[in-house]
Amino acid sequence: MSEESKALSIVVIGASGDLARKKIFPALFALYSQGMLPAHVRIFGFSRSKMTDETFRKCITEHLTCRYVPGESCQEHMDGFLDRCFYMSGQYDSRDAFLDLYQVMQREEGALPANRVFYLAIPPSIFLDVAQALGGAGLVQCGISDPWSRVVIEKPFGRDRSSSDLLVQQMGDVFREAQTFRIDHYLGKEVIQNLMVLRFANLVFEPLWNRKYIKSVQISWKEDLSVEGRGGYFDGYGIIRDVMQNHLLQIMSIVAMEPCTKMDAGHICNEKVKVVRQIPALTLDDLVVGQYTAADWKGTYYNGYLEDEMVPNDSITPTFAAAALTIDNDRWRGVPFLIRAGKGLECRTTEIRIQFRHANKSMYAALGADHSPNELVIRVQPDESIMLTVANKVPGMGMKIERTQLDLRYQEAFEEIIPDAYESLMLDVIRGDKSLFIRKDELGAAWDIFTPVLKQLETEGIAPEPYAFGSHGPKAADALAQKYGVTWA
Amino acid sequence: MSEESKALSIVVIGASGDLARKKIFPALFALYSQGMLPAHVRIFGFSRSKMTDETFRKCITEHLTCRYVPGESCQEHMDGFLDRCFYMSGQYDSRDAFLDLYQVMQREEGALPANRVFYLAIPPSIFLDVAQALGGAGLVQCGISDPWSRVVIEKPFGRDRSSSDLLVQQMGDVFREAQTFRIDHYLGKEVIQNLMVLRFANLVFEPLWNRKYIKSVQISWKEDLSVEGRGGYFDGYGIIRDVMQNHLLQIMSIVAMEPCTKMDAGHICNEKVKVVRQIPALTLDDLVVGQYTAADWKGTYYNGYLEDEMVPNDSITPTFAAAALTIDNDRWRGVPFLIRAGKGLECRTTEIRIQFRHANKSMYAALGADHSPNELVIRVQPDESIMLTVANKVPGMGMKIERTQLDLRYQEAFEEIIPDAYESLMLDVIRGDKSLFIRKDELGAAWDIFTPVLKQLETEGIAPEPYAFGSHGPKAADALAQKYGVTWA
Repeated sequence: MSEESKALSIVVIGASGDLARKKIFPALFALYSQGMLPAHVRIFGFSRSKMTDETFRKCITEHLTCRYVPGESCQEHMDGFLDRCFYMSGQYDSRDAFLDLYQVMQREEGALPANRVFYLAIPPSIFLDVAQALGGAGLVQCGISDPWSRVVIEKPFGRDRSSSDLLVQQMGDVFREAQTFRIDHYLGKEVIQNLMVLRFANLVFEPLWNRKYIKSVQISWKEDLSVEGRGGYFDGYGIIRDVMQNHLLQIMSIVAMEPCTKMDAGHICNEKVKVVRQIPALTLDDLVVGQYTAADWKGTYYNGYLEDEMVPNDSITPTFAAAALTIDNDRWRGVPFLIRAGKGLECRTTEIRIQFRHANKSMYAALGADHSPNELVIRVQPDESIMLTVANKVPGMGMKIERTQLDLRYQEAFEEIIPDAYESLMLDVIRGDKSLFIRKDELGAAWDIFTPVLKQLETEGIAPEPYAFGSHGPKAADALAQKYGVTWA
Repeated sequence: MSEESKALSIVVIGASGDLARKKIFPALFALYSQGMLPAHVRIFGFSRSKMTDETFRKCITEHLTCRYVPGESCQEHMDGFLDRCFYMSGQYDSRDAFLDLYQVMQREEGALPANRVFYLAIPPSIFLDVAQALGGAGLVQCGISDPWSRVVIEKPFGRDRSSSDLLVQQMGDVFREAQTFRIDHYLGKEVIQNLMVLRFANLVFEPLWNRKYIKSVQISWKEDLSVEGRGGYFDGYGIIRDVMQNHLLQIMSIVAMEPCTKMDAGHICNEKVKVVRQIPALTLDDLVVGQYTAADWKGTYYNGYLEDEMVPNDSITPTFAAAALTIDNDRWRGVPFLIRAGKGLECRTTEIRIQFRHANKSMYAALGADHSPNELVIRVQPDESIMLTVANKVPGMGMKIERTQLDLRYQEAFEEIIPDAYESLMLDVIRGDKSLFIRKDELGAAWDIFTPVLKQLETEGIAPEPYAFGSHGPKAADALAQKYGVTWA
């Protein structure tokens, strides 16, 4: 019996929240409208808000899009999808509420044994309550084979190594590691999925992919938004836990990992853990933290972080961080990996920039050539693209050399719709492919890099450097890069 | 006194011919209209046709273009240019005719000592007559410093090693090697000039540029034209002498040469000669010759080569040739260089295709990946561009890998006007930069590769394989490529 012919119940806990409405239900509809969900699929929303099925359906319709089924047939697909959606309200720690949900599920699942996905679209502080209530209500089937139950959770996984370990252990009482899908949605993004293909399915990059040819790697995540609406959550975590320890480190591990012998989840995770463990713990010397302040930017006034009504007036939570990491192995020894993440910056962009060393300078030195080295830029957002900066002769008399780009812009290169990260990742969960999810040993290794410095920031009460909203971030970040001979792009 | 402030006389012998009218005078006007010629420049046309200065000026105006001086000022530039153009007719072997030319030159040059460029835009069979007449009339100043005289000649330089050597030696009686500029106009093309920059001013290509990573190199020159109007000339030479021994071998030498310690003419030529001498002479086993036959193509009837009124009915002159060359050095041992040139083919294109070896197959084998290897394509014409073919994940669910291109299209990447090859090369002649001209040892080495097989084709009367006009050329060319594990692009 193929996966597609089995019944599947997808239970979204926190169904009225932003993540569920804006990402999870649209992703499920995208898969449904492409015929990628089993025929016997049912979707169950659960949250504290009281709603009828009808209200719930109206509420999720708002963010569904017709991009895979343009034209008239879209409405038909939507109706079909919504008919499979059901809602139950209740408290997150109430076994009884989940027993009620169970009844509804059994009614809809019918006699068929159904596989179950539990998507915990809720704050991590209540992961455990929900897991225990689900377990207590008998909803979690313990088989990893049919009928299986899987749980999907999203970062932050704890606040440091020990709280993360505790969470892993306690969740592990209900869901075994094999059943647990820890999402880092950056791993689902097309360009990040392509990163391994670029490195390993091409011959031209791997020979250059080491300290002999690569001078530095920059990974930047910039957002031109404030924490508005999320200030309360954010202040408890800060940018290092919110972006750096997960998204940026995940990207870095894929840039830096050794090739695997096989492209399956086990082999990929093994190599990722290996390289993450080779990154020495970050120290204060190699970290810059910042916090945005109020500013007029592009004609609008933006509050500073401390003016956010959910943020304490004396908060030292960083909204910006820049760090220099290294990797202690033969491939990367001596190559700085400069990573930075910030909110309230001058633009929204996520990109990886591999800077190569200088070519033999002497040959073109006399000609006054542009000696900027080659760069491979892999842009994750806003416009997915790959660019290789190459020195070329400028057309015309004489020898004038300039850097130009060999480009691959996704929108131009591919006819295919670029799916949202959640679409791929949801399908992977259903198919049981864990390649793009975080294994517990990887999570622990990631925390080991940041835990000491996070503790120090807090115990020593280190104040972040202020930077104006809409600026390039704190000045100290430039000095940090310069220490490693790098200029931020 | 800078080069620009000196008087300069440019003497174009064969001024009424196609090369002069379509290429040389337009190139000179392009330089003139950009202010790149000295203020005291004069241009003297010489050929057998009787014409007044006025008729001559009208005759060359036809091909002048305003691309560097669009708008109203163009006419002004044209008038200024034509005012500097003078014409004399005479026999090519007549010392007296050149004495008459000399008088006109002296009248126009005035008291200033003038540098002189003699462009021999005439068939090679009369190079020597003209050179001797020029010398006899006292026009050739023997200094290499001021006032200097330089001669520009174009291929074919002889028909084989010995006739080429003889021509070099006899021309050398009038013009020393330092005064002799042997043009191969492919070396003046922007993309070919960029080839050395690409290789040596970038770090990312050179580490891959060897037999460990490169599987094969293809250099193709295709023309969708017949020999119409040039059948008489062509039949005496054939495609190997007309295109392969010069243009294609020159391109190959730049693809294959070692880096020079300095980017000047001496060092570049030394490295080019070195690599050309490492190419073993071509044998019949590694050569395919073809001759196009009449065909209906794209709704038009094209004569076969033998139907051309200037071509003997039993001619075995090849209009197509494909050859496999190798280079006996550490960088290239075992890498086939497949070069082909043909007229009457399906399209007009000149390109270099560097095919890399396969990446580690096993990693993506299970995923049914597209295992076509990376290719770097450098297109010389019709549309100048550089393309790196790279395997990428196709956006969408699952792991589908396809080859896509990182592109640099000149028309999009550069605002600059792409100059005609003759513009750069004429300026180089005036500036005395011989980097892009063929030195006599290089010419000899180039003939050594082709002379034995050219002799064998003729003495053994080997008939070329017929191919229909507008087709891809003879079938045997595919078999030749396959022998080396290559498929023509």
